[in-house]
Amino acid sequence: MKTEMKTILEDVRDGRVSVDDALLKLKMQPFEDLGFAKVDLHRPVRQGQPEVIYGAGKTPEQMVKILETMMQKGQDRVLLTRLGEEAAEKIRVKVPLTYDPVSRIGYTGNLPTPDGIGKVVVATGGTSDIPVAEEAALTASFFGNETVRLYDVGVAGLHRLLSRMDVIMGASVIIVVAGMEGALASVVGGLADCPVIAVPTSVGYGASFGGLSALLSMLNSCASGVSVVNIDNGFGAGYLAGMINHMEAKK
Amino acid sequence: MKTEMKTILEDVRDGRVSVDDALLKLKMQPFEDLGFAKVDLHRPVRQGQPEVIYGAGKTPEQMVKILETMMQKGQDRVLLTRLGEEAAEKIRVKVPLTYDPVSRIGYTGNLPTPDGIGKVVVATGGTSDIPVAEEAALTASFFGNETVRLYDVGVAGLHRLLSRMDVIMGASVIIVVAGMEGALASVVGGLADCPVIAVPTSVGYGASFGGLSALLSMLNSCASGVSVVNIDNGFGAGYLAGMINHMEAKK
Amino acid sequence: MKTEMKTILEDVRDGRVSVDDALLKLKMQPFEDLGFAKVDLHRPVRQGQPEVIYGAGKTPEQMVKILETMMQKGQDRVLLTRLGEEAAEKIRVKVPLTYDPVSRIGYTGNLPTPDGIGKVVVATGGTSDIPVAEEAALTASFFGNETVRLYDVGVAGLHRLLSRMDVIMGASVIIVVAGMEGALASVVGGLADCPVIAVPTSVGYGASFGGLSALLSMLNSCASGVSVVNIDNGFGAGYLAGMINHMEAKK
Amino acid sequence: MKTEMKTILEDVRDGRVSVDDALLKLKMQPFEDLGFAKVDLHRPVRQGQPEVIYGAGKTPEQMVKILETMMQKGQDRVLLTRLGEEAAEKIRVKVPLTYDPVSRIGYTGNLPTPDGIGKVVVATGGTSDIPVAEEAALTASFFGNETVRLYDVGVAGLHRLLSRMDVIMGASVIIVVAGMEGALASVVGGLADCPVIAVPTSVGYGASFGGLSALLSMLNSCASGVSVVNIDNGFGAGYLAGMINHMEAKK
Amino acid sequence: MKTEMKTILEDVRDGRVSVDDALLKLKMQPFEDLGFAKVDLHRPVRQGQPEVIYGAGKTPEQMVKILETMMQKGQDRVLLTRLGEEAAEKIRVKVPLTYDPVSRIGYTGNLPTPDGIGKVVVATGGTSDIPVAEEAALTASFFGNETVRLYDVGVAGLHRLLSRMDVIMGASVIIVVAGMEGALASVVGGLADCPVIAVPTSVGYGASFGGLSALLSMLNSCASGVSVVNIDNGFGAGYLAGMINHMEAKK
Amino acid sequence: MKTEMKTILEDVRDGRVSVDDALLKLKMQPFEDLGFAKVDLHRPVRQGQPEVIYGAGKTPEQMVKILETMMQKGQDRVLLTRLGEEAAEKIRVKVPLTYDPVSRIGYTGNLPTPDGIGKVVVATGGTSDIPVAEEAALTASFFGNETVRLYDVGVAGLHRLLSRMDVIMGASVIIVVAGMEGALASVVGGLADCPVIAVPTSVGYGASFGGLSALLSMLNSCASGVSVVNIDNGFGAGYLAGMINHMEAKK
Amino acid sequence: MKTEMKTILEDVRDGRVSVDDALLKLKMQPFEDLGFAKVDLHRPVRQGQPEVIYGAGKTPEQMVKILETMMQKGQDRVLLTRLGEEAAEKIRVKVPLTYDPVSRIGYTGNLPTPDGIGKVVVATGGTSDIPVAEEAALTASFFGNETVRLYDVGVAGLHRLLSRMDVIMGASVIIVVAGMEGALASVVGGLADCPVIAVPTSVGYGASFGGLSALLSMLNSCASGVSVVNIDNGFGAGYLAGMINHMEAKK
Amino acid sequence: MKTEMKTILEDVRDGRVSVDDALLKLKMQPFEDLGFAKVDLHRPVRQGQPEVIYGAGKTPEQMVKILETMMQKGQDRVLLTRLGEEAAEKIRVKVPLTYDPVSRIGYTGNLPTPDGIGKVVVATGGTSDIPVAEEAALTASFFGNETVRLYDVGVAGLHRLLSRMDVIMGASVIIVVAGMEGALASVVGGLADCPVIAVPTSVGYGASFGGLSALLSMLNSCASGVSVVNIDNGFGAGYLAGMINHMEAKK
Repeated sequence: MKTEMKTILEDVRDGRVSVDDALLKLKMQPFEDLGFAKVDLHRPVRQGQPEVIYGAGKTPEQMVKILETMMQKGQDRVLLTRLGEEAAEKIRVKVPLTYDPVSRIGYTGNLPTPDGIGKVVVATGGTSDIPVAEEAALTASFFGNETVRLYDVGVAGLHRLLSRMDVIMGASVIIVVAGMEGALASVVGGLADCPVIAVPTSVGYGASFGGLSALLSMLNSCASGVSVVNIDNGFGAGYLAGMINHMEAKK
Repeated sequence: MKTEMKTILEDVRDGRVSVDDALLKLKMQPFEDLGFAKVDLHRPVRQGQPEVIYGAGKTPEQMVKILETMMQKGQDRVLLTRLGEEAAEKIRVKVPLTYDPVSRIGYTGNLPTPDGIGKVVVATGGTSDIPVAEEAALTASFFGNETVRLYDVGVAGLHRLLSRMDVIMGASVIIVVAGMEGALASVVGGLADCPVIAVPTSVGYGASFGGLSALLSMLNSCASGVSVVNIDNGFGAGYLAGMINHMEAKK
Repeated sequence: MKTEMKTILEDVRDGRVSVDDALLKLKMQPFEDLGFAKVDLHRPVRQGQPEVIYGAGKTPEQMVKILETMMQKGQDRVLLTRLGEEAAEKIRVKVPLTYDPVSRIGYTGNLPTPDGIGKVVVATGGTSDIPVAEEAALTASFFGNETVRLYDVGVAGLHRLLSRMDVIMGASVIIVVAGMEGALASVVGGLADCPVIAVPTSVGYGASFGGLSALLSMLNSCASGVSVVNIDNGFGAGYLAGMINHMEAKK
Repeated sequence: MKTEMKTILEDVRDGRVSVDDALLKLKMQPFEDLGFAKVDLHRPVRQGQPEVIYGAGKTPEQMVKILETMMQKGQDRVLLTRLGEEAAEKIRVKVPLTYDPVSRIGYTGNLPTPDGIGKVVVATGGTSDIPVAEEAALTASFFGNETVRLYDVGVAGLHRLLSRMDVIMGASVIIVVAGMEGALASVVGGLADCPVIAVPTSVGYGASFGGLSALLSMLNSCASGVSVVNIDNGFGAGYLAGMINHMEAKK
Repeated sequence: MKTEMKTILEDVRDGRVSVDDALLKLKMQPFEDLGFAKVDLHRPVRQGQPEVIYGAGKTPEQMVKILETMMQKGQDRVLLTRLGEEAAEKIRVKVPLTYDPVSRIGYTGNLPTPDGIGKVVVATGGTSDIPVAEEAALTASFFGNETVRLYDVGVAGLHRLLSRMDVIMGASVIIVVAGMEGALASVVGGLADCPVIAVPTSVGYGASFGGLSALLSMLNSCASGVSVVNIDNGFGAGYLAGMINHMEAKK
Repeated sequence: MKTEMKTILEDVRDGRVSVDDALLKLKMQPFEDLGFAKVDLHRPVRQGQPEVIYGAGKTPEQMVKILETMMQKGQDRVLLTRLGEEAAEKIRVKVPLTYDPVSRIGYTGNLPTPDGIGKVVVATGGTSDIPVAEEAALTASFFGNETVRLYDVGVAGLHRLLSRMDVIMGASVIIVVAGMEGALASVVGGLADCPVIAVPTSVGYGASFGGLSALLSMLNSCASGVSVVNIDNGFGAGYLAGMINHMEAKK
Repeated sequence: MKTEMKTILEDVRDGRVSVDDALLKLKMQPFEDLGFAKVDLHRPVRQGQPEVIYGAGKTPEQMVKILETMMQKGQDRVLLTRLGEEAAEKIRVKVPLTYDPVSRIGYTGNLPTPDGIGKVVVATGGTSDIPVAEEAALTASFFGNETVRLYDVGVAGLHRLLSRMDVIMGASVIIVVAGMEGALASVVGGLADCPVIAVPTSVGYGASFGGLSALLSMLNSCASGVSVVNIDNGFGAGYLAGMINHMEAKK
Repeated sequence: MKTEMKTILEDVRDGRVSVDDALLKLKMQPFEDLGFAKVDLHRPVRQGQPEVIYGAGKTPEQMVKILETMMQKGQDRVLLTRLGEEAAEKIRVKVPLTYDPVSRIGYTGNLPTPDGIGKVVVATGGTSDIPVAEEAALTASFFGNETVRLYDVGVAGLHRLLSRMDVIMGASVIIVVAGMEGALASVVGGLADCPVIAVPTSVGYGASFGGLSALLSMLNSCASGVSVVNIDNGFGAGYLAGMINHMEAKK
C-alpha cells in the first residue's frame, strides 16, 4: 500500500496525474461499489490470490452479481462459504460452480496443486464434526495446501489418536475440530510440535450451549501453540492454516 | 405539560371548568383506550409529529384498529415497524399503506421533505446488515431527515471506508449498523466529528451469540461520541438520529 | 482530513514539498510518540478543542509526560478521567491541576463559559449514582455546556421526578444515571422531547450483576430517543451530550 | 397434616387400625399413582380447593386420565395451564372443558363468585404482554378473585398509567406483566400501597434475551413490596395474588 | 394521591389557594430536597408509617442529614439497612440509634407491638444464611409483625424441617432464605398453605455464582405461591411479608 | 492395556513378531477405520461388554455401516442413543433392532438378566421428565441392572416421595431426573444412603434457560453423595449407575 | 426410616408410648437444636458413621458448640471442611483437632484403616489443583478408603499420564481434579474402567471464568462413566468416592 | 515419538533391553516426578528447546525445586511466567534469574540472537495493555524472534496505526493485544498479509466483563487470518508467534 501511495504521489509531482484525479484514484480503485456490497478487488489485484465470498445473509442474486463483477476484473478463482444447496443451484445457472454439500462450499475455477511447506492435518473429535472439518479442509485445498483428514479421534478413545502419531508428527499445521468438551485441542497441542488451530463446533447438547463449552475449553488449553477461531468457523481455520503453511515466502 | 396543567388550573379557578371535569380531562385526554392498547394521541396533538406503531406482537386486526383511531383523530402520518409482509397485505386492504419488505416498515402518508441540520449517514459493516440499516434509514427519512447510505464498509477492508471520508466528515449524525465484532462503530467514532449511534445486529454465528458480541464491543468503544441502542433496533437509531439532527429548533 | 490530504498533494504538485517529505508528514504529524503512548495532537490542532486523558491504567509519571507533551504543543486545556486522589497529588507537583474527588476528574486550565444550544440535565436514580453523574456533569461543563443536576429522582418515588417536569422539558439533552433496575431512563425518555443518554451504574447488589441489570434495562427501553453508553461511563455521556448540545454549529 | 397424622396415631392406639394398615394409609392416601403421574388429591380433599394441571409436556391422553381420576374422586373444578388449542380439542371430546386460546387456559366447572379481600389488578406494559396477563387474570378469577385489567400502560407513556391512579390505589394486589425493560414493576411498586407481583415476559428482541432483561430489572426494583415470579409465569402470579387476596381467612 | 389532588383543585376553585401556589404545592410538598437526596416524606405524612433509608452507598454524614430532616418533620421511627458497624457508630453520636451487627440494621424509635394477621416465619437453609434472615426478621418486626425464626432446616436433612410442620402450618407468610441450590423454597412452598417469599443468598461457592444458582432455582420453583426477591434482599422480603400480613386492613 | 502392551513386547523379544508388525498391531487393532468414524472394538474385545453408538449427528447410512462392522467382529449387543423414529425405521430394514420411541433408544440383541449389586432407582420430578428418565432406565437395563421407576415425585408434593421411602432406602444407586429447579436431587440425596446421580433436564420455561437452572441447582446440592451429568444425559446416568452397581466385581 | 416409624407405631399400639410422646419423639429425636444450627445426630446414631461440619460461614464459636454437642452424643469422629488456619487454632484450644493447612481440613479422632473395595485414585491436571485434590483425598481417607495421589498429569503432557496406566487400571474410583480446560476428566474417563468423579477447580485465568470452563468441559465429557461435582468441591468428590468404594456392603 | 518407540522396540528385539526395562523406560524417562509436579524433560532433551514454568499457583520453593531439577538435567534456559516480584526475589537467592516486573517474566540464561523468518510485531490498543504485550514480546524474544513494539495504536485514532503501515506490512506475525472492544484485531487483520494472533486483555470496565467483550469481538473478527488466545495470555501468543515465525524449519 505504501508503494502504491508513493507511486501516485510521484505521478502527481511529475504532472502525470492531476490532484483531483489522484484523490479519485485513491478512493475508487480498490473496490467496485454494487450498492449492497463493495466488492474487494484489492487483494487479487495486488497478490494474484483467489477471493472469498461469505454466503450467509446474501441472496443468490447478490452473489451472482458479485461473482460476475469479480470475473470481469479477471478474478477467476472464487470461494463461496456457507452456501445453501438451493442457492448453489441458482448460482450454477449463471456461473460455472463446483459445489460440495457437506462443507456447504462452492467455488469457481479448479483446486490448485499444493505448494505450501507441508501438510495441513484436519482432525475431528467425532463424526458430527465432519461438516465443519470439511469446510476447513476444502478451504485449505483451495488455497494450495496438501490436506490430511483424521476424523473421529476424540479423546474418549485415545488409542485412535495415538495410533496416528505419524500423522500428527508430520503435520505443518493441525486444525482440531471438536464440539462437546473440546478436549482434543489440548491433547493434540501437547503431542504436536506445530501450530494448532482449534475450531469449536456447536455439536453437542445441554451444557454445551451451542459450542460455548468447547470454545472455553479450547481458549483455556494448557498446551502451548494452540489458538482458537469462532465456533463452527471451518473457513477461518483453513485460511489461517494455509497462511501459516506458506510462511517461508515471507523471508 | 406544565403549561397544560396551568391552563386547566386557571380554568378551574375562573369557574370555566368544574373540579371533576378538570380531573377527568387530565385523565382522559392524552390517549384513546382500545382495551388491548391505549393509543397515544399525546405527542401528535402537542407537536404535530407523526406517530409510530411497534408491529411485533400485534395482530393485523389490532393494528388496523389503532390506525383507524389515529386517523380519526387527524393523525395522517403513521409509521409501522417490525411489520411482516403478510400482515402488511391484510392492513392494506383497510388502510392505504406503503410497505418496504427489506426494512419491514410500513407507513401511511408521504415521506416529508428533509429539514434537519444536515445529513444522517447510515453505514453497515456488511451486506447482511442491510435490513436493519434500511429500518434506520427509512425511519430517519420518515421523520424529515436527508439520509445517505454507506453499505458494506466493514473494517476488514478499511480502504472501502477511508475512500468515503467525505461522507463521514459531512455527516450530522452517523448510524453504524454492524454485527459480528461490531468494530466499525469504534473506527467511525474515531474518524467522525459528530454523534455516532451504534446498532449491533444479530448477524453472525457461533460466539456472536445473537448480537451480544457486537453489542459489548460497541458499549466498550474507546472512541468518544458513540452510544448504543438495542440489537437490531434500526428504528430506535433512526428516530434518535432525527432528534439530534433537528436539535437547533430547541434554542 | 480530506482537505489536509489535498493541501499536501497540491504542495507536492507545485514542488513545494518533496514526495518523501510529504509521506513523512502524513505519517508523523498527527501525534507524538512517547513509546508507551502516542499522544494525539490531531483534534486540538485541527479544531482548537480540549483534549482528554483516560487515567485508568496509566502511572502518574506517564500522565505527567503526556500532559507536558500536550502543553508544549500549545494544548492548555486537558481533562483527566478516572484519576485517583493519590495520582492527582503526584501530578499536581509537576503540572497545575484542578481535582474533584467525587467524580475523580482532574483538569488543567479553566472551565469555559457555556455556549451550547441549551441545558444538559444530569439526573440520577439515587444518591449512590452521584459519582458517575458528577463525572458526566463535570465533563459537560468542561466542554462548554450549561449543566443542571437533578439527583435522587428514582422511579420508586415518582413525584420527585414529576415535580421537576420544568427541568425535564427545558433540557437540550438529558443524561440519566441509574443502577439497580435502571427504569429511570425509560420514564425520562417517555416524558422528555430531547435525546436521552442512559448511563447504567454498577450500583446495586445481588442480581444487579455489576450493572448488567441496569444496562439491559436501558438497552430495552421502550421509550424512543434513548441510547446507552458503557456501565459507569459518565465521561462518555457528558462528552456525547456536549456534542449533541453543540449541533447547530454543523449547519 | 399434623392433625391427620395424630388421628391415624390415635386410631392405632385404640386398635381401630392395625400398624401395617396405618403405614399403608400414610403412604397411599394422598395421591393416585397413574405410573406416569402421581395425581395429587391432597389439597382438594383437605381444603376443598380446585386443582391445577400444568399442561406443557403432557399428552392429551395423559391429561384426560388425570382429569378422569380427579373427577372420580369428586374434584369437579380443575384448571389446565399451558394447554395448546389442539390438545384442548382432544380433551374436550372426553371431558367438558372451557378453553381460552389467548391465555391457553382450560378449566372444568364454572368460575366462582369472587370472595377475596379486594381487587386483583393485572397491568401490562404493552399489547404483546396480554397472553401472559390473561393467564394471570383467568387464574385469579378461577380461584375466586375479582380482577381488573389495565393493559398497555408502559412507562414510556406515563400519563396512561397516571390517569388510572384510582385503579392502582384501589387494588388489593397488583400483578405487573411486562417484557423489554420491565420498568413498569418499579413504577407501579412506587405508586401502590399493596403487594406487587412482577411477571417478566419473553416479549422483546435483541438484548431482552428471552425475558432476562425484564427479569433482572424486576428483581432489582428499588420499590418496596415487589416480588418476582418466573418469566411468562402468569399462572404463578395469579395463584399467588389470590392467596394474598384471601389472607384474612388465616386470622 | 387522587384525593390530595382533588383537595388542591377544590382549594383553587374556591379561591383559598392561588394557581401558582397550588402548582408549587403539588411540586414541593412530598419531599425535602437535600441536593444529594430527595427525602421522601410522602408515605409517613400520608400513612403514619415508619420510613426506610438504604444505607449502602451513603456516607454517615449524608445519613445523619436525612435522619435529622425526617425527625424535624415528625418522623420518629426510621429503619436503616445495609449499615456498616463503623457508620452506625458515627451516626449514633448525633442521633439515638439501636444497631444490630448481624443483620446490619439500625433503627430509631422502638420496635412496635405486633398487630398483623398472624406470624411471619423466617426459615434458612443453613447457618450461613442467618445474616440475611435476620435482616428480614428485624424488618418484619420493625413493621409490626410477630416473627418466628426457623434456622438451619435445609433440605439435605429433611427431618429437621418436617419436625417443625406446626410452625410451617401456622404461618401467615413464610420467608425462605437459602443459598447454594435454594431447594428449600420449593419444599416449603409445597408444604405450606400461605405465600412464600424466597430470598436467594450469595452463600455458596463455585457454580453458585454469587447466588445465581439459588435465584434461578427459586424462580423455577414448581410449588405454587412462591415469589422471589433479589439476592440477599432480606429487607425486601421482610417488608413485603409485613405488607401481606396486614392485608385485612384493605377491605 | 499394560498387559496387551507387555504381550506384544514379549512377542517382539522372542521373534514371534517383527518390529514393524508390532507397531502396526498397536496402531490398527483396537478399531476399524470407516473414514467418517473409527469404530471402537476395544472394549468389547477386552471385556465382552456391549457397545454404544451415539446417534445424534449420524446419518442412518453411517449407523448401519458402524453396526455391520461391529456385528462382523462378533459384537451382537449394541445400544443406539438419540435415535429418531425415522432413522430407526431405515436401520431396521438392514439390521434387526428393537426401538423405544419414548427414550429414543434402539438396540440389537436382548436385554440381559440383571446381575448387579442391587436396584437402580430412576426418579423424576414430573411427567415431562419421563423421556430422559426412560433413556437412563433402558440404558441401565441394557447393561444388566434391575431398575425401579419412581416417576412424578417432585418436591412440591413431598408426600409422594416420602410415601416411597422403602424404594429410596432399598436402592443401590438412584438416578434423579428433574428440570425446572432441580430440587429433587438434594431432597433425595439427603434421604438416601447410596450414590445419587442427578440429571438436569431441559424441561421448564423462562428462567430455566434450557436446563441451566436445574443444572446449577444440582451442582450446588448441599446433600453429600450427589454428582451431576450433562443436561438431558439420561444415557450417561444409566451407564454410570450400572458401573457403580457392578462395583463388587473389582475387588 | 420406615423401620423406625414402624417401631414407634408398634409402641403406640401396644400402649408402651402415648400418642403425644410418639409425636414428640418423631419430631425431636434426630437432631439437637442450637438455634443457629440444628446438629444432625441422625446418621451417626443410625449408622455409626463419622459426621461432617461445613466450616465456611460458621464462626469458630459456633463450630466448637456443634463439636461439643456431637461429642456429648458419642460422636467422636468429625470432619471439618473449609476451615481457615486461624479458626482451626481457636477450635483446637477447646477440642483436640488434627489440622491440614493445604486441604484446609480439620478432624477429631483418627484416620481409620482403609476397608473399601479398592483404591481411590486422585489425579490433578497441575500443581495448582493440589489443595482441592488434598481435600478430596483426605476426605476419602477419613471415610476409610485407601487413596493414591497422581498429581500434575495434565493432558498437555500426555506421557505423564500414560506412564501411570497401572494406577489408572487398578483404581476402584478415580477423582479427577482439574482447572483451565478440564480435559483430563475426558481422557481419564476414556482410559479407565471405573467411575470417574470430575472436580472442576477455579484454577486458571481469563476465560476460565472461575472454573466455569472446566465445569462445562467436564459436563460435556464424551467419555462414559464420568459425573461432576461443584467447582472446588473436593470434599463432595471424596465423600462420593468413598460411598462407591464401599458399595459391596449393600448387597 | 514414533521413532523413539521404534528404537526401544528394536532394542527389545535385539536383546539389548529386557521387556520390563523397556516398559519402565517408556514410562519413566520423559519426566522427573517431584510429587507436586512432574517436571517435563521431554521437549528439551529431544529438541534442545528452552523450557517454561507457569508460575501462578506455585510457591517459590516449588519453583526453585523444578528449576534445580531442570538445571541438573542440563536445561539452562528456562522461562518463568506470571511470576510475582516477591517470588522472583526468593528464587533469585537460589538460582540466577533475570526478572522483568512489567511482564512479570523471569528467565535463566540469556536471550538468544533472533533466527526466525522475519519480525514478530506486538501492537496494543492502549497504554494499559502494555504488561500483557510485554509478556508476549519477551516470550517471543526468549524463543529467538526479532520483535517490534507498536504500542497505543487503538482504532479510535486510526492515523496512529496507518502511519506505521510499513511495520504492519513488514511483519511475519502480528500479535494484537487489546482490551475494551478489541477492534484493533479486525483492523490489523484487514490490513496485514500475515497471521494475526489476537490477545484480549482484561483492561476496561463495566460491560467489558473482565475481557469478555474483547474476547468475543476478536473471535467474531470479520478479517481472515486472525485467531485468538485466552484473555491476558501474552505468553501463549508470544510462543505461538515464535512457532509460526520458525515454520520454514519444517520443510
